[in-house]
This record gives sequence, structure tokens and C-alpha cells, in this order.
Amino acid sequence: MVVFNMHGLSGHRPLSFRVVRHPAQAVVLGFAGAVAVGTVLLMLPVSRTGEGGAAFVPALFTATSAVCVTGLTVVDTPTYWSGFGEAVILALIQVGGFGIMTLASLLGLLVSRRMGLRTRLTAAAETKAVGLGDVRAVVKGVVKVSLLFEAVTAVCLTIRFRFAYDESLATAAYHGVFHAVSAFNNAGFALYSDNLMGFVGDPWICLPIAVAVIAGGLGFPVLLELRRQLHAPRRWSLHTKMTVTMTAVLLAGGAVFVTVSEWRNPATLGALDTPGRLLAGFFQAVMPRTAGFNSLDYGQMHEGTLLGTNVLMFIGGGSAGTAGGIKVTTFLVLLYVVLAEVRGERSVEAFDRRIDDRVARQALSVVLLSIAAVMSATLVLLVLTDLSTDKVLFEAVSAFATVGLSTGITADLPTSGHLVLTALMFLGRLGPITLVSALALHERQRLYELPEGRPIIG
Amino acid sequence: MVVFNMHGLSGHRPLSFRVVRHPAQAVVLGFAGAVAVGTVLLMLPVSRTGEGGAAFVPALFTATSAVCVTGLTVVDTPTYWSGFGEAVILALIQVGGFGIMTLASLLGLLVSRRMGLRTRLTAAAETKAVGLGDVRAVVKGVVKVSLLFEAVTAVCLTIRFRFAYDESLATAAYHGVFHAVSAFNNAGFALYSDNLMGFVGDPWICLPIAVAVIAGGLGFPVLLELRRQLHAPRRWSLHTKMTVTMTAVLLAGGAVFVTVSEWRNPATLGALDTPGRLLAGFFQAVMPRTAGFNSLDYGQMHEGTLLGTNVLMFIGGGSAGTAGGIKVTTFLVLLYVVLAEVRGERSVEAFDRRIDDRVARQALSVVLLSIAAVMSATLVLLVLTDLSTDKVLFEAVSAFATVGLSTGITADLPTSGHLVLTALMFLGRLGPITLVSALALHERQRLYELPEGRPIIG
Ligand SMILES: [K+]
Ligand SMILES: [K+]
Repeated sequence: MVVFNMHGLSGHRPLSFRVVRHPAQAVVLGFAGAVAVGTVLLMLPVSRTGEGGAAFVPALFTATSAVCVTGLTVVDTPTYWSGFGEAVILALIQVGGFGIMTLASLLGLLVSRRMGLRTRLTAAAETKAVGLGDVRAVVKGVVKVSLLFEAVTAVCLTIRFRFAYDESLATAAYHGVFHAVSAFNNAGFALYSDNLMGFVGDPWICLPIAVAVIAGGLGFPVLLELRRQLHAPRRWSLHTKMTVTMTAVLLAGGAVFVTVSEWRNPATLGALDTPGRLLAGFFQAVMPRTAGFNSLDYGQMHEGTLLGTNVLMFIGGGSAGTAGGIKVTTFLVLLYVVLAEVRGERSVEAFDRRIDDRVARQALSVVLLSIAAVMSATLVLLVLTDLSTDKVLFEAVSAFATVGLSTGITADLPTSGHLVLTALMFLGRLGPITLVSALALHERQRLYELPEGRPIIG
Repeated sequence: MVVFNMHGLSGHRPLSFRVVRHPAQAVVLGFAGAVAVGTVLLMLPVSRTGEGGAAFVPALFTATSAVCVTGLTVVDTPTYWSGFGEAVILALIQVGGFGIMTLASLLGLLVSRRMGLRTRLTAAAETKAVGLGDVRAVVKGVVKVSLLFEAVTAVCLTIRFRFAYDESLATAAYHGVFHAVSAFNNAGFALYSDNLMGFVGDPWICLPIAVAVIAGGLGFPVLLELRRQLHAPRRWSLHTKMTVTMTAVLLAGGAVFVTVSEWRNPATLGALDTPGRLLAGFFQAVMPRTAGFNSLDYGQMHEGTLLGTNVLMFIGGGSAGTAGGIKVTTFLVLLYVVLAEVRGERSVEAFDRRIDDRVARQALSVVLLSIAAVMSATLVLLVLTDLSTDKVLFEAVSAFATVGLSTGITADLPTSGHLVLTALMFLGRLGPITLVSALALHERQRLYELPEGRPIIG
């Protein structure tokens, strides 16, 4: 086993490829370790409210859901877990969110540099722009940005919980901190049995959470670059341009879609007044990407809304952040590849930059393997249960994209189903980033070239 | 409008790019013309059994379904249409199947040559191997191979209908010819109200139809090459190797999947004896790719079977044949791209041949646009109706991949739903081939190169 040698990498020296032989492997082991520790802690009697400790599978599921910042639950968080159990979940969310931001940023940097060296087109400009110079700076930056967003959100929520909902200051602060951490890390865990459905019409709760979710979902490199040159969008890196543009498009498009699609549904938006409908429509467009809070009941939504939400969940948020899914850049790269093909252009271009074929191939691999994972899990869950396709597909996409939304079937699945979802959450959280980095760092070149073959396509 | 100038291209001269300026456009117009003529003919009172003529939308739907060799129906073929109406449908199937085989072969050849010229890696070896030398040879070849398979199948079916089902010789011959043409052209139209469910246990009906379906689904270039060197698989072109391999894998895998998945379902396989189950399992694995006959009731199948069948339908059959879907080569090319990425190899290799990046991009474009079309149509149909996701998704995939299987909802859809399916059948039939050819023939090269950008993927 080769460990991700943090010490040897720090001290403002550029990342060395000699010490980091299998960084992707180390990331997977690190997350598996965190899940293992979390499972053991959650199985302790002190973590539960009732008699005895939690059973293995619910503890494993909850720990995986927290570390992978997913938010799917098989037990009711506020009533099943004790204060200690909730603190464990909170810590796992923070460790998971911090870990994924840091490690994904570093892996992205490694890949970028390695590919740059190989193709002799250095990606230095890209990485320099986002300030991913060395490990220590990345870690410090992630800590700072996380604490900043979490603190501001926690203060907003605490004030609201204290004065509008009559909670004691201690309770309000605890609720404020928990939901702020859960929001910025896109975890979607809530301390209310109906998640945030009790606050469906309250902008002072919904909007701070939405802002924290969107910020966390942009990803660390984008946040860093926005801080440095927020008002000079022309000088942003391609990665930031793509992430911000696509995020805006998905938020606006998603909000319109959900609002229109559910407008007359008496079990969801139909029960609210017009401002409430707009707020709830927007909130339910932010959350699939990929926080997983909900202020409406997904079990009551129209099947068309669920399918559209599946698309939002599958695309997910920004790379090297707490969002899941295939990531907006992955989606946008493929869109530009198709666009280039439709226009009959040889080179793929986006925002006045050329996108290398290798990047397009990475994006293609991530998307196809993700589709395969979701479809396989859906098929297995359909075989294991008598549930309908819309609910099972929604659950599988939600787990893979580490969203945490559900039509309400999670707890009722058989144990085998819980294990499938556990594997899917872990795979969805670490699959795409480790796939790209592990592979890009182990490139092989054939010494001879085969003759070309040309099958007919389409 | 530039017409596909058959005359100027014939006479054993190689295809000229000066006269063929917009062949893809001509193909689309040709198919639209056939649909228009078919619609008018089917609206004539003589085409119906009842009073007056058929209404516009059912006639349009049926004509599109026949020309696009899909097989979805909004009215019951044997009771609604007169003998004349059935003959019109048969003619439309033959014209559609013949047209698609001929034109897709020619377009594939054009693309191959154009790309070969561009990349200076001539694809002559590939096209020469399949004998696509000139237009006249292609047309003659398609006529010969179609008549051969249709005649043999018709004779087998006629004998069985005459002697096992006590039909008069004229009726048996009519049924034999109709179902043979419908089978080889992968149309899936049947002259029985329950399609072929009455023959679920009869291998003398099911197997000849399955053979004709598989042959038609391989595609003309593959059939031609198999005739020339059936026993020298090492010398097959890459296209034939890929098509034959993938067809075998999908048939075997599909048969095992359907048989296992439905084994205990009392409404489908569970009602049959073991040989009957195996025959029906195999038959229902052949038909999704993409004939659309059925000997079991898809409305009674497990949702897991429907999802697996969706995958088979979406992948479809061989290029330049009567099969629909994205085509097996398209799927396999993407699989090899992902495999190369996973292995960290720069060049994509399959069966000892190198696959050009342009081919991979074509495949990617076909798949992504196909997914977008199916998902959009599913969403629209969900909004238009109160049907469940599994049934609507199945219907949309079936229409797009011109399969023609249904859970039984087709006739009950609103008119708007029928129009969506009509558009989807047309798009699914012509979209992939015309996309690839239209674009490959209009390649543009930038005179300057942009600097590279490198977004983070995954
Ligand atoms: K989440
Ligand atoms: K068909």
C-alpha cells in the first residue's frame, strides 16, 4: 500500500510524482477508513436513543451516507440517534466534505500536470489561475472557505431558529451549525423528521441554506478563483467559466421546470400561495444538485418531475467540491464535443479554448460508466423488490449522485437493497474522480501502431 | 433542393462528391414522401374494413410505423384495415426496409471514403471487402438478399400455416409472405390481433421468423461479406467482426436475462413448459433488436425485464440494415473507447484495428443525441398522460429504436402522444445515419488553433 505522502509534498514544493504512486488508491482507502470508524461509532449504544446499539447495516448505511455527503437515511435521524450520534454524523459529514474538496482538488491538479507534461501543452495557466500551487495552500484554503461559509450560514439560521421558531439559544445554535455544515457540504442530513418540509414557505431558512449549497457545489477551485477575480469573468479559467455558466443554466432551467411541472399538484406546490410556490420551486431545483434537502414531499411528485429531477441529480454540481453526479464540466465537455461534431469541426472549442481529445475521452468514460452503474443498480433493486421503476430509478440516481433525495422508499428496502445503495453511494462519491485520476496517471503508449479499421456508426 | 442523383452515380463509376451535395437531405425527403403517400393511401375508404376512411392521425401513425419498419400500432391491424390496407402496409414496409438498407449502405460508403480521403488513411480495404463498389451493385445486392431471405422464410411459414393451422393455401401463402417480409425488414407488423402470442410454443413459426429478423438486423454490408467469406472470419472487416460478435453476445445474454427474469412469472413464461420457456425466452431476446414481434405479453412483464429490454432495444442491431437503435457498432466503439481509457492507452483498438478519434466522436454524438431524444419524449409523454414511467419509457425507447414492442398503451395515448411517437419513429429511423453522414460530409477546419483549456472532469 502506498500512502498519499502529505509530508513529502508540503512546504510549497510542487507535487512530486515519485512519492505519489497511487494517490487514487489512497483516497479510496481513506474514505473506507472513515466509513469504518463511523460505523463502529454509530453502533455504540451511546449513539442511539433507544435500547442497545444500532445494528451493523443501518450504522454502515448511515456512516457511508454521511461520509459520502449523500443524506439518504434508513432511520429517522432526530428520533433514532442520540445527541452523540448526531455529533458523529456531523463529524463524518465534515470529514467527508473536507476530504473530498481537498483530495479532488489535489487529484485534479495532478491529472492536469501529468497530462500537461505528456502533451507538452502545459496546463500551468489553468492551475495557477485557481492557486492550486501546493498541498498546504490547498488544505488551508479549503479550511478557510468551509469555515467562512458554514459560519455565515450558521449565524443566519441560528437567528431565525431563535426568534421565529422560539427555540432556546443553545438549540437554535446547535440546529444552525448542524444544518449549515450539512448544507455547505451538500449532505442533506436534517434534524427534522420531515427534513425541511416545515420551512417550505420560510425564505429566511431556505435561502441561506440554498446559498451554502450552491457555494459548496461549485467546488473549491471555482470558489478560490471567484474570490480572486470575481469581477473579471473574462480572465476566469475555462473550468470556472464552464462551471459557473452551467450552474446558472441548471438552476434557472430547473427552477422553471419544477415550478411549472408541480404548479397544480395539490400535494406539493398547489398547496402554497404564489410566493411560496416560487420559493419552493427554486429550492427543489437547487437541492437535486446535489444537497438532498427537501421542502416538498418527493413521494407526492408527478412522475415527470421525478424524471426531470433525475437529470438534474445525474449531472450534479462542480468538480472538486461537495457536489456529486458526473459534474457540470463533464456534461458540458460532452455537449461541446457533440456540438463540434454537428458543426463538422475537427477541434472541440468552448469559451475560446480548445479541449483536448483526452479530456473528451475522460468525460465520455465517466458518463458511460456512471450510466452503467445506475442502470445496473436499478435493475438489481427492481429484481429485489416489487417497487415501481420511477421510484427505484430515482433512488439509484440519488444514491449514485450522492444527492439523498428519496420518494420515501429507502427505509423499507430489504437489507440487500441497503447494501446495494451503500455500494452505490461509495462508488458515486469516489468513482468519477478516482477513475479519471488513476487512469490519467497510468498512461501507456503502444510502441507500434495498428492499421485503421472503420466500422459504420449509426 | 439537391436530389440524390442515382443516374449520375451508376455505371460502375465510383461515387462522385460533386453531384452528391446533400445526400442525407435527400434521404430524409424520400422517407417523408413515402410516409405522405402511405398516409393518403391509408386514408382511402378502400383501406378500411368499416365505414368511411381512416382519420389523418391513425393513418399517419401507421404509415410512419410501416415505412420506418417500427411496428407500433394505434389500431388493430387485421380487423381495422382491409386486405388493400394490409397490402399498402406491406408495400410501405418493403419500400422502407429496402430504402434504409440501400441508402444507409451508400451513405456509410460515402462517409467512409470522405473520411478516408481526409485522414489519408484510405478506407478502401473496408469498403472493398464488403463490395460496396457502386450504386448499381448495392441496389442489386440489396434486392437479391432481401428476396432470398423473404422467399425462404415465406415458404417455411406457408407450409406451417397450411398444415399445422389448417389455413387454406391462399391464406397460408398470404400470411407467410406478409410475416416473412415483416420479419426480414424488422417491421414487427403481424396479421394477428395478439401479434404472435398464439404461436408462443411453436418453433416452426418462431424460429424461421427469428432467423429472418436476425439476418435483416445484421445489415447489408455484413450479409454481403458473410456470403463472400463466411468461413474466413479472420479476414472479415472490422465492421463485420464487431457486428457479428456483438449480435451473438446480445442474443445469448438477452436470452439468458429474459428467461431467468420471467421464469416464474405466471402471466408470461411461468405458464409454459420448459422447452416453451426456452423458446419464448430466446424469441423475446431476438425481437427487441429490433423486430418488435412478440409471443409474450409485455404488459404483464416484470419491470426489471422491461428495463433490460429497454437496453436491448436502445442498442439495436447492425448498421445499414433494417434494425434500429444506436446500432451495435456504435455501442461497441464506445465500449472500446472506455476500455482504452481504463487501460490508460492513447489509441483505441479493437480486433487488432485502430479506431480513429473521429469515429469515436460520431459514436458519442449518436448516443448522446439518442439519449436526449428518448428522455425528452418520455418527459413529454409523462406530462401528457397519467401513465407510469416504466410503460412510457418502454414506449419511447421502442419508438425511437423502431422496435414496435409495447406494454399495450399505444392505442390509448392522446392524439398529441401519437404525434410525439410518430416524430420519434421518424427521428429514430433516420436520425443516427443522417446525422453521421450529413456531418461527416461537411467537415470544416479552423485556419487557426485556439489555446488549450483543461476543465476538471469527474
Ligand atoms: K447530498
Ligand atoms: K420493428
